Amino acid sequence: MVTADLASRPLIAVCGGGSTDPKRELLARETGRILAERGAILICGGLGGVMSAAAQGAREAGGLTVGILPGMDKAEANPYIDLALATGLGHVRNTIIVRSAQGIIALPGESGTLSEVAFGLTIKRPVVGLQAWADIEGVLPATTPAEAVELVLKLL
Amino acid sequence: MVTADLASRPLIAVCGGGSTDPKRELLARETGRILAERGAILICGGLGGVMSAAAQGAREAGGLTVGILPGMDKAEANPYIDLALATGLGHVRNTIIVRSAQGIIALPGESGTLSEVAFGLTIKRPVVGLQAWADIEGVLPATTPAEAVELVLKLL
Amino acid sequence: MVTADLASRPLIAVCGGGSTDPKRELLARETGRILAERGAILICGGLGGVMSAAAQGAREAGGLTVGILPGMDKAEANPYIDLALATGLGHVRNTIIVRSAQGIIALPGESGTLSEVAFGLTIKRPVVGLQAWADIEGVLPATTPAEAVELVLKLL
Amino acid sequence: MVTADLASRPLIAVCGGGSTDPKRELLARETGRILAERGAILICGGLGGVMSAAAQGAREAGGLTVGILPGMDKAEANPYIDLALATGLGHVRNTIIVRSAQGIIALPGESGTLSEVAFGLTIKRPVVGLQAWADIEGVLPATTPAEAVELVLKLL
Repeated sequence: MVTADLASRPLIAVCGGGSTDPKRELLARETGRILAERGAILICGGLGGVMSAAAQGAREAGGLTVGILPGMDKAEANPYIDLALATGLGHVRNTIIVRSAQGIIALPGESGTLSEVAFGLTIKRPVVGLQAWADIEGVLPATTPAEAVELVLKLL
Repeated sequence: MVTADLASRPLIAVCGGGSTDPKRELLARETGRILAERGAILICGGLGGVMSAAAQGAREAGGLTVGILPGMDKAEANPYIDLALATGLGHVRNTIIVRSAQGIIALPGESGTLSEVAFGLTIKRPVVGLQAWADIEGVLPATTPAEAVELVLKLL
Repeated sequence: MVTADLASRPLIAVCGGGSTDPKRELLARETGRILAERGAILICGGLGGVMSAAAQGAREAGGLTVGILPGMDKAEANPYIDLALATGLGHVRNTIIVRSAQGIIALPGESGTLSEVAFGLTIKRPVVGLQAWADIEGVLPATTPAEAVELVLKLL
Repeated sequence: MVTADLASRPLIAVCGGGSTDPKRELLARETGRILAERGAILICGGLGGVMSAAAQGAREAGGLTVGILPGMDKAEANPYIDLALATGLGHVRNTIIVRSAQGIIALPGESGTLSEVAFGLTIKRPVVGLQAWADIEGVLPATTPAEAVELVLKLL
């Protein structure tokens, strides 16, 4: 059911706001799609907004999607998550997403996304800011999804 | 690359000792194999002993395997893990395994395995003891891998 | 307000069931009292039953009590907790209690207490079982609170 | 040994860089001192730089200081910590500090401090930026330690 090469694929986090914003979601979906085309596994917070759109894009391109959920029930995952881990840790689960990923692409978002950006920098993960977070020292700026994916994969 | 039905498959933890013991590993491998044949996704601690043997069995039957690692480097995963999440949480990662699983099959092991059994009972997960842990109140005893898998899947 | 020697005092966890049981609570209160008399700081889960009784005993003897709470609101602490840390981690907070303590005294309880005993053994903390858990390999048995305190302090 | 009113005192986190910087440390020490004078308990990461200076200030004013350490050994705490909890969680411990605090004062620092600021905002804690972080939406700016303490205590 699964081809055997998953272990060698990079695990990339896509972070961003949970609220609905069409422009942001388009950006996320395109990022997810390109990540999957390039062979990466997508990891995210598993809920709505950027998380859902990125997983949708990855799924559409045949990729695997992982959602690290804040609650205890895997039913809270968005419909594009293949593997949902219900941690019950609330926002502390952000640290699990970031530690598990080999690199992070951060889209526009609020303080939850910022906590992932900052935590990623703290533990020395490559953090690419896609149309966002470029003013934070250490974040690598990108303007298109293709550029963001290229950049994060080059830095692994 | 992945068939689209992963989200509907149950996520089952196989727990047990990390040290090498041929009889125990045979039991674990058989458990992993049957879980995969029944369509479950295997989740475990990602290291050696029971964890490695169970993942090997699942992999051989075409199943997906998830390893929640104690360290920060996914290279510490055994070779049968498809998706390795390096948490850096040490043994606290045991709680992530158990919370993420819909049910637990516990093989013989030491205190680390016992912590997973006890934590599983605490958060009301079905816990099946395979040739082990039967004296702990709440653990459902099984004598063969087939019986253990049958039992845990029935209780989801 | 606080004498300056707190840092040199041992931090000892008292674990046990959260439900009310007069005999068990008497045992816990006595354990807390003797720990405080011997200069230890008490750490526990901060809720009711054994946790509350142990903190009450420690407080009555002038000791300091720390409660690591499962929820997000420190108001859920029992009235004998001096310092309540609201972790929001649910039962995962058990691992914080055990890691923070230099030794553990485990009274009768259910699976939550067992998870603390097992986790303590896993990370090589001295674990004393007071009228409980003596059948678990590695647990040091004690029959009275005085004996339990003596034993745990000797092993630090 | 401890006056009995600790439970009613607010628990305030002081966050900031771990490296040595005399100006920043002076600011931290003054913040710790005023917090203690106002009856707050200080909680911090327990290591050097801002964490050590803030704890020193609080200790000098007779306050209680709590350090949530990243490692497993409480000996890594700075000498001004009364109660050291060794979590072994690495930087994930930042989330424990912030969740446990009723309010946060953030001094200048790097990405670790930023992760605490962002996490605090995410879980709706009052976050005061003392000569720092004022450009982050939701952070309340302060220019002096006295003003920062005043502001955070008013918002509890």
